[in-house]
Amino acid sequence: MTPTITAFEASPDRGRGLARDMRVRWALEEVGMAYRVRLVSFAGLKAAEHRALNPFGQIPTWEESGEEPGEEPGEEPGGGVSLFETGAIVLRIAELRPGLLPADAAGRARAIAWMFAAVNTVEPPILERATAVLLEGDRPWRDERLALIDARIRVRLDELSRALGEAEWLDGAFSCADIMMVTVLRRLEPSGLLEEFPALCAYIARGEARPAYRRAFADQRAVFEASRAGG
Amino acid sequence: MTPTITAFEASPDRGRGLARDMRVRWALEEVGMAYRVRLVSFAGLKAAEHRALNPFGQIPTWEESGEEPGEEPGEEPGGGVSLFETGAIVLRIAELRPGLLPADAAGRARAIAWMFAAVNTVEPPILERATAVLLEGDRPWRDERLALIDARIRVRLDELSRALGEAEWLDGAFSCADIMMVTVLRRLEPSGLLEEFPALCAYIARGEARPAYRRAFADQRAVFEASRAGG
Repeated sequence: MTPTITAFEASPDRGRGLARDMRVRWALEEVGMAYRVRLVSFAGLKAAEHRALNPFGQIPTWEESGEEPGEEPGEEPGGGVSLFETGAIVLRIAELRPGLLPADAAGRARAIAWMFAAVNTVEPPILERATAVLLEGDRPWRDERLALIDARIRVRLDELSRALGEAEWLDGAFSCADIMMVTVLRRLEPSGLLEEFPALCAYIARGEARPAYRRAFADQRAVFEASRAGG
Repeated sequence: MTPTITAFEASPDRGRGLARDMRVRWALEEVGMAYRVRLVSFAGLKAAEHRALNPFGQIPTWEESGEEPGEEPGEEPGGGVSLFETGAIVLRIAELRPGLLPADAAGRARAIAWMFAAVNTVEPPILERATAVLLEGDRPWRDERLALIDARIRVRLDELSRALGEAEWLDGAFSCADIMMVTVLRRLEPSGLLEEFPALCAYIARGEARPAYRRAFADQRAVFEASRAGG
C-alpha cells in the first residue's frame, strides 16, 4: 500500500517546512514508507473534492489505496482508509509500521497524551501568535497583544522545558509524539522566543538532525523550489 | 480497576460543565466504568505533585491502579498507566471498554481524526475567544477583536455543520469523537454564535440528552454546589 498525501502547491512558508505536511512526511520517512504527494492550490483546498477528504479545507490529507495499476492489490490491510488531521495521520502511520510507538500499552498511551499536548496545549498560543501577526498585523493593538501572547507562550515553553529535563525525547525513545512537538515548536522559530529555552532548542536540533527529518525537509523544499521556478 | 481523575475543587465555570473533566466523566459514564475523583485547588494545580501527572498544571488527569485495599489486584491489564490531555484519556477509556470506537480499523482511525479535529481545528478559535474575554476583556481592542474572532469561528462552524449534514453523529454511530466535539462546541454557549447553526444546536442537544451525559453533568454540578456550600 502506497498512501497519497496532499500538500500546498505553493506553501506560504516559502519552503521552511512549517506547513503541516512536514509532520506526515517526517513520520513516513521514519518508518520507511513510500508515499505519493498530490499538490493542491489555495483554490483547490476549498473545492468539494478536497473537502470530501478534509471538511475544513486544509492540508495534509491521507488516502490509502493498494489497488493501482502495477501494484499488488491487498498488500496490506486497511485499504481505503482516508483521513485528515496530522495527529490522526501520524498515529495511523505509527500503527501501520513499527518504530514510532512503544510496544507496551502504558508507553503507547503516554505517547498519545504527548501528541495531544502538542496540538491542544502547546500549539494554541503559538497559533494565536501567528494569527496576531498574519491576520491582525495591521491593527493598532499588534505590539501590545504580541507581548501578552508571548508571555503565555513562555509559560508553556517553561513547563515543557521542565518536563523534558535532561531527557533526549519526551518519554523514553523517540516517538510520534516528538514529531508532533518538534514541528509545533518550530513554528516559533521566527519569534526569537525559543532562544530563551536552550533545552528546547537542543531538543528541536536533535529532531532536525534525524536523517528522516532531513529527507522530509528536502522533499517539501523541492516542492517550493519547483513552484518558484514555475511561477 | 477503578481509575482516579482530577477535577477543579471550585470550577471557574460555576457548575456549567464546561471544564474539561466533563469530557472524561461523560466517556466513563458511556462505558459504565466507575471512577474516583480527586479535587484540586488552583494552588494545587501548580504543585509538584500535580505537575508529575500533568506537566502543564491542568485538570483532568487519569491514574489507573487496581491495587487498593478491598479491590482485586490485577483485575485488568494496564495498571499503573497515568495520563493527561482529555483526548488521550477519552481514547484510553474507549480502548479499555467497548462502545466508544468502531470495531473496524478504518472507522476507528476516522473517529480519532475527528477527535483531533475537535481540539486542533475547531477549538483553537473558540479558545482564542475565551482568552479575548477573560484575559483581555479590559483592553480597548476587545470588541473589535471579538468581531474578528467570531468571523473565524463562523467559518469553522459552517464547515462542521456541512460535514455533519443530516447525520446524527460525526461518523456513523456515536463515538468518543462526538464527546470531544460536543464539549468543544458547548464552550461557545455564552457567545450566542451557535444559534446561527441550527444543525449544530440539534447535535449538541442530542449529546446532552444522552443518559451518560446527564449523569456526568449532575456529578460535576454536585462538586460545584458543594464548593459553594462550603465557601
